[in-house]
Amino acid sequence: MAARSTFSPRPHPAAARRREALRAALREAGLEALLVTDLVNVRYLSGFTGSNAALLVHAGDGPDAEDRTVLATDGRYTTQAAAETPDLPLLVERACAPGLLGASTAGAIGFDSAQVTVDTLDVLTAATEAELRRAPGLVERLRAVKDDDEVDALRLACAAADAALAGAVADGVLAAGHTEREVAHELEERMVTHGASGPSFETIVAAGGNSAIPHHRPSDAPLAAGDLVTMDFGALIDGYHSDMTRTVLVGPEGAVADWQREIYALVDAAAAAGRAALRPGVGTREIDEAARDVITAAGYGEQFVHPVGHGVGLVIHEAPAMGATATATLEAGMTVTVEPGVYLPGRGGVRIEDTLVVTGSGAEPLTASTRDLLVLG
Amino acid sequence: MAARSTFSPRPHPAAARRREALRAALREAGLEALLVTDLVNVRYLSGFTGSNAALLVHAGDGPDAEDRTVLATDGRYTTQAAAETPDLPLLVERACAPGLLGASTAGAIGFDSAQVTVDTLDVLTAATEAELRRAPGLVERLRAVKDDDEVDALRLACAAADAALAGAVADGVLAAGHTEREVAHELEERMVTHGASGPSFETIVAAGGNSAIPHHRPSDAPLAAGDLVTMDFGALIDGYHSDMTRTVLVGPEGAVADWQREIYALVDAAAAAGRAALRPGVGTREIDEAARDVITAAGYGEQFVHPVGHGVGLVIHEAPAMGATATATLEAGMTVTVEPGVYLPGRGGVRIEDTLVVTGSGAEPLTASTRDLLVLG
Repeated sequence: MAARSTFSPRPHPAAARRREALRAALREAGLEALLVTDLVNVRYLSGFTGSNAALLVHAGDGPDAEDRTVLATDGRYTTQAAAETPDLPLLVERACAPGLLGASTAGAIGFDSAQVTVDTLDVLTAATEAELRRAPGLVERLRAVKDDDEVDALRLACAAADAALAGAVADGVLAAGHTEREVAHELEERMVTHGASGPSFETIVAAGGNSAIPHHRPSDAPLAAGDLVTMDFGALIDGYHSDMTRTVLVGPEGAVADWQREIYALVDAAAAAGRAALRPGVGTREIDEAARDVITAAGYGEQFVHPVGHGVGLVIHEAPAMGATATATLEAGMTVTVEPGVYLPGRGGVRIEDTLVVTGSGAEPLTASTRDLLVLG
Repeated sequence: MAARSTFSPRPHPAAARRREALRAALREAGLEALLVTDLVNVRYLSGFTGSNAALLVHAGDGPDAEDRTVLATDGRYTTQAAAETPDLPLLVERACAPGLLGASTAGAIGFDSAQVTVDTLDVLTAATEAELRRAPGLVERLRAVKDDDEVDALRLACAAADAALAGAVADGVLAAGHTEREVAHELEERMVTHGASGPSFETIVAAGGNSAIPHHRPSDAPLAAGDLVTMDFGALIDGYHSDMTRTVLVGPEGAVADWQREIYALVDAAAAAGRAALRPGVGTREIDEAARDVITAAGYGEQFVHPVGHGVGLVIHEAPAMGATATATLEAGMTVTVEPGVYLPGRGGVRIEDTLVVTGSGAEPLTASTRDLLVLG
């Protein structure tokens, strides 16, 4: 039966390299070891995908440092760990993090204070005589810059979303009479057909007045002539999340109002300005500013009620932060969204969002659906 | 367009009553107020379903205490808050929890130390002169005992899963040649047809040797004659999660081995023992014991590698805990799963799980699919 398993025992191809990068960061931070408790970080550093795990990574630059990396998980996942992380010693223990601390002889161990709760820190402290030091965001900073395999996975996820939208448009899904929920379901189904394991977050389809609600949940409201329809959705492939928003109009052409065309053109210009500002060395807050300035200049600054975008990868919202108060600086290999919007309560709204990878000199869009204003149905 | 919105302005019918129950718990704990930061708890206490929010609930038993309850969210959700929580004052602020603390005059405010991170506590402390006191699990304890509307929602969610399985069985989905992924997709699609907004967690379909992996992810492995097929899945309706596991066999009858029938009968008996032990006043660890004793007596204790079950409701795993070291006591209105399993690495496994509501004298199953051993296909 082993041949039929999806878990052929094979270490994750990039995990050892990532642990090496983390060890360099640990030495820089003066830490002997890092307790990794966030499951996404555990996956990133080991390839293990179970729902209960922790990882202890020791600093040092010799091979023995790597030898002392230990993965902990509970009895439900021993078979899976043997298949996904054959290169790592395994501790089988339901209380993963305290178990790892108890088994370590390091004197100063970092923990992710942005992820560990106040109560959990008590449990960790009781489990070790080591000094526990705050070390938030070390793995997240590594994760922000994607390696080629990660960009490839995101590229596939973005392509699945593009194909789903193209298919839905071609098949007349975006037409008066269909409900928001039906449109969402069609997009999700089509992403699965194109290789997604599922949607990368709860699909947003917001028609008419609902499009003024940035995070509207699809309802049984039917699309009607003249509606703005905002679709914010993405595909999950191999753990990587795509993220795209398109706003279309339900025809006929005669039902489209001037104010709808105007805010569409405005948001389109703001998104273009945001994308054009992406390049290594630029502060992410400047991306927000580039897009926001366009909208503010047109008098709609108060109606752009969220940050311009966010990093995206193993989590739908991850580093770098991209808002008006963000302090991150773009680097080549970062994958981010640019998604300005204008929302007029009771009337409707427009948001246009792409996922891009920062390159040596600018940024390459991973989402490819047209941004031309489509009047459909 | 307002008539087409799903958000007609209407306070959640049970939220005010829940806040009143929480205020009683606060007075008992000697707290002037509680800062509620977990989004599910915010939803439970207010009806607000956005993705960024916090709630400050003041103790006291006069109407002014309720008047001082404030919901905070950011600009993306003002329209939604006006519709979902017209009964609560709103603070519009991206940093919800610090904003609420800054605006409160209470002297001693509880926070959920099981949910607030070490770093966030620093931010909260800087935002207030009040004494911040640890108060973990207060809302979770209220949530563990469901009101009638909650049980009704769970009943619908369980019925959707039952109907999905019945349909899949009737339509020959569980047959040699179909892949685990196809079976998972069929179950998920059918749950949506029966009213679910989606699956309540990542559907598990594990065939043949994979059924020995308790949390196996569906793969492209096809079902084959003689396979045990474990399906662990549930429906999400109105925020409530159903949870059911059934294990079936792929026929023909001649392909079924004696050991498969034996462990099926054993797990079935263990599940029955666990369910029969459910009643108010019993410690949840006794439920684990009742089921585990049956399996241990048959010599498979080492192969039952997880707790017997868990509370279920607005979250798929919630209070009460149900494992061998759990300290909770059952009360009428608690909704829990009972799900023993036996896993034989490389060969296969069986798990049988139901969701039940504890009644005055025992427990009523909410999942209704047959537990007879089905040989299909």
